[in-house]
Amino acid sequence: MLSDDEIAQLRRASPRALTNHPRLSVRATLAQLADDTPADLIFDTYGTGAWLAAFETRIATELGKEAAVFMPTGTLAQLVALRIWCDRAANPTVAFHPTCHLETWEARGYAMLHGLRALLVGATSRLMTVRDVEAIAERLGAFVVELPQREIGAQLPPWAELVALCDAARATGARVHLDGARLWEAQPYYARPLAEIAGLFDSVYVSFYKGLGGLAGAMLAGDADFIAEARVWQHRHGGRPVTLAPYAIAAERGFERHVAKMAAYRDRAVAIAAALHEFDCVEVVPDPPQTNTFHVFLRGDASALETRAHAYAARTGTFTFARLAPTVMPTVHKWEFVVGDATMALSVEDVVAAVRATI
Amino acid sequence: MLSDDEIAQLRRASPRALTNHPRLSVRATLAQLADDTPADLIFDTYGTGAWLAAFETRIATELGKEAAVFMPTGTLAQLVALRIWCDRAANPTVAFHPTCHLETWEARGYAMLHGLRALLVGATSRLMTVRDVEAIAERLGAFVVELPQREIGAQLPPWAELVALCDAARATGARVHLDGARLWEAQPYYARPLAEIAGLFDSVYVSFYKGLGGLAGAMLAGDADFIAEARVWQHRHGGRPVTLAPYAIAAERGFERHVAKMAAYRDRAVAIAAALHEFDCVEVVPDPPQTNTFHVFLRGDASALETRAHAYAARTGTFTFARLAPTVMPTVHKWEFVVGDATMALSVEDVVAAVRATI
Repeated sequence: MLSDDEIAQLRRASPRALTNHPRLSVRATLAQLADDTPADLIFDTYGTGAWLAAFETRIATELGKEAAVFMPTGTLAQLVALRIWCDRAANPTVAFHPTCHLETWEARGYAMLHGLRALLVGATSRLMTVRDVEAIAERLGAFVVELPQREIGAQLPPWAELVALCDAARATGARVHLDGARLWEAQPYYARPLAEIAGLFDSVYVSFYKGLGGLAGAMLAGDADFIAEARVWQHRHGGRPVTLAPYAIAAERGFERHVAKMAAYRDRAVAIAAALHEFDCVEVVPDPPQTNTFHVFLRGDASALETRAHAYAARTGTFTFARLAPTVMPTVHKWEFVVGDATMALSVEDVVAAVRATI
Repeated sequence: MLSDDEIAQLRRASPRALTNHPRLSVRATLAQLADDTPADLIFDTYGTGAWLAAFETRIATELGKEAAVFMPTGTLAQLVALRIWCDRAANPTVAFHPTCHLETWEARGYAMLHGLRALLVGATSRLMTVRDVEAIAERLGAFVVELPQREIGAQLPPWAELVALCDAARATGARVHLDGARLWEAQPYYARPLAEIAGLFDSVYVSFYKGLGGLAGAMLAGDADFIAEARVWQHRHGGRPVTLAPYAIAAERGFERHVAKMAAYRDRAVAIAAALHEFDCVEVVPDPPQTNTFHVFLRGDASALETRAHAYAARTGTFTFARLAPTVMPTVHKWEFVVGDATMALSVEDVVAAVRATI
């Protein structure tokens, strides 16, 4: 059994990988970032500076919003959005899907820091529906929709259902916030401009280090007065370092390099998922994938699968997965398959061969 | 009148500057950071990774504490410390000096985010005394001491007074936290090991981008269980990006390059302050300086002084100050003089000549 550090080393040492973008060393990443940086750029100071403001405006425009603010994490961006909407509504109740990142991965900051309380809407194993939202009998301060719903394989509702869902959410009195951590990845499914999708929401969070391949960082977008207030809360959280330049530069370069490739990533995800049908012990969700991301459920012994995957990487130079996640069935394990530039460098047959050698 | 961006450009374009460290462009900074990075270093993930852990241990050891955690900002580090101590004491009252950074520069996150309430101890214009602390009749959850007290010219109490002050603070029931944003800079005055100074406190925050010249970032140090809890609150705040590598690498290099120079910086501050006695319209506080930092009060018209300073930089290539801060007297303006490597590259006579041309 390899440690987390050993697995990360193995991934970086592998010239090929089935998922995500190629992983560079820290040194190579920083050297490339320096090359990507205009020679005359000076550091932003506590979030101010002409270059950073232009980047924020660029993303706001892309999302059809008046303004946007760059923050070090999406956790921060979303807490700030919910706090503002709930303060304005004088109602501390927020609603979201049971697998929402705020509920599952953020140590309950919404409650412990902001005194907000959560209503979970719909079932853990499927998308939230209009019927789920219409069944809410309470007034709400804020409502979160996540596109795609990552924890269930990056699923997306059809456009008409999404529009109706936002209308129903707004009928509770809530402002509707988009967890768009993977909004770029969701856009090809809707085949509508980002601004039209974002237009359904009062506020939008987007991320720069997942499909876009940046270092870290997020933006929150909305009306100008909302973003001005968000900057105060960013500061209050301790989320406004004296400079965010390395993150922001990597974010803009990632946006420029990857956003146009999302449809190709999604198409490759569909092709790989179809090819995996040949294995009886493999199931993909959703089938077909709706974005660049889907979940592969593998039947077998988790530790044996991981050992084979790591040995395969060490032997062939092709990395499959780091670890599998457990499911409610002890014999079934989950692998999040994210198509990125590393995937695109392989053929579908290469991917199938690696899976065949591992399962 | 130059804009903030124009002043920053002027500072960077000036080959010489009276204060702080030389300012590199973003590109040059990132290129140097890449050069400073070991070739085999891989990215930390959400605050974990062998290299980052070793750096945290190194600083904890330096401070004589069991553990430390790297965070993107000091604002975050201090809020987390106060929240933990107040939760453990079941007492939401914190106490600090009226000029404490938490009170003056952080949008009152302690209250708005954490529901804490502040008792201000002592007078704005002077150091807090043992008598001020002994006059507190209430029980407290946490007590903050700032070394040096930056807003009044980076003043420091004598060692015996500091020891007595911490004892008096602890007698209120509070845990005593050190705002050590400039602890490295304070150490030469006490001429005691950092661990002996930090040993007076239950928790210590130190910064890496002021005297140490890093990009941004802070550490919080204390007992192992306290730091483990601090990591949870860091996450909860949205202060745990997927990687902090650029900040952490710059922090460690800054520590290695600058910490041993603090006594030389302080000595130069003392020499410069003495030389400034020749000007009737100039007063320095404290006199003599106790650290690398002191305040220069200039009598005159603020905007005329700034215009002359910027013109001097444009003409001679020697940058003096960006802007002056107002004081309660309309004719007196404050300049924070921080000795760093840029200062050390000049003679005391160079500094005096630049001041003479500006006032």
